[in-house]
Amino acid sequence: MKKAVVLLSGGLDSATTLYYVKSKGYHPYCLIFSYGQRHSKEIKQAIQIAKKARCPYQLMTITLPWQGSALLDETTKLPNRKVFKANDIPVTYVPARNIIFLSFAASYAEVVKADAIFIGANSIDYSGYPDCRPGFFEAYQQVLRRGLKTGIKGKPIKIYTPLISKTKKQIIALGLNLGVPYALTWSCYSGGKTPCLHCESCMLRLKGFRDLGREDPLVS
Amino acid sequence: MKKAVVLLSGGLDSATTLYYVKSKGYHPYCLIFSYGQRHSKEIKQAIQIAKKARCPYQLMTITLPWQGSALLDETTKLPNRKVFKANDIPVTYVPARNIIFLSFAASYAEVVKADAIFIGANSIDYSGYPDCRPGFFEAYQQVLRRGLKTGIKGKPIKIYTPLISKTKKQIIALGLNLGVPYALTWSCYSGGKTPCLHCESCMLRLKGFRDLGREDPLVS
Repeated sequence: MKKAVVLLSGGLDSATTLYYVKSKGYHPYCLIFSYGQRHSKEIKQAIQIAKKARCPYQLMTITLPWQGSALLDETTKLPNRKVFKANDIPVTYVPARNIIFLSFAASYAEVVKADAIFIGANSIDYSGYPDCRPGFFEAYQQVLRRGLKTGIKGKPIKIYTPLISKTKKQIIALGLNLGVPYALTWSCYSGGKTPCLHCESCMLRLKGFRDLGREDPLVS
Repeated sequence: MKKAVVLLSGGLDSATTLYYVKSKGYHPYCLIFSYGQRHSKEIKQAIQIAKKARCPYQLMTITLPWQGSALLDETTKLPNRKVFKANDIPVTYVPARNIIFLSFAASYAEVVKADAIFIGANSIDYSGYPDCRPGFFEAYQQVLRRGLKTGIKGKPIKIYTPLISKTKKQIIALGLNLGVPYALTWSCYSGGKTPCLHCESCMLRLKGFRDLGREDPLVS
């Protein structure tokens, strides 16, 4: 059975990616990061999702001694509505986040002999992040081809971004078909008992379910 | 004053790189990794070297929950002589090591507003490692150009490998000119009081000093 490393954040996109990977006949190895997020709720949810999907997971703890983002820095006010302009980079940008995540995924994939790395990045509803765009992943693919033993000696580990061009509505439609347990996912930037329904991430999720004419199990 | 992040391992090459960076007028920010090496001696020495050079440093601790290399795994026997064949990858290869190191360097560089990252990689005496070859760094440069805010919004952070094509003899010659405190550096794969003088890394260092007709302060 083919193996794949799946980056799992506890959010809606990565959970959908995990179930997509399973549906494609891969044995997924989940990689979850604790990197000093504002709250630990999404990490707990990621673990719940991996367990629910009956997949092995690794929790990597990363302590970045330097600062740089609203998602890490508790003193920065989070944006409470979508103020997206073309080419704008949101304050929630974390320098090199996906560069770091993929570097560990590469190591993990090579050690467990996985053919592929799947990441639920999306350039439609989050195109503000440079490390969520197609060109970034194409460049990273070359790094894996040239910097890993498997790239030099055999078949390079392939990076897949199955959600990259999908709208939130399309992602949720896919996930509902695949049986993704959306009640276990967490998208809100805050870590309360229920989603705040005001932050950028909540707004996108709300809109996705609404556009599809379905109810978010977290909200109903 | 221009700033640069320098990857510092405690070995001869990275110490030489640090002093080279200083000589080029940069203010260096040293990045030292504790990643489960067989011994902590090289980390202690890296800190000593940063202090001696009067440069700020960050110590990043990374715990890789998976295995995969003789440099990390105490049950693997280390090679005690140079058995290099073209295209061979040594057992001391650590999957994605430089991919991981550079990912943190990218984050650190962006946060401290550095223009450059310097790494003392060398493809002459260690060409067995895929992530020490020029093509790998060229590919990684594209990742920084596309995946970082600075790459999209301004001038990309540049990766420099000043030692990439130098022999050990040439590296030591450069370092002696720059006043590198080689007595503080540690190259041996073991963590004893004095170098073992038998491992691959000791052999390369010995040969470098011998080819130059100089004495290694660690051996004399």
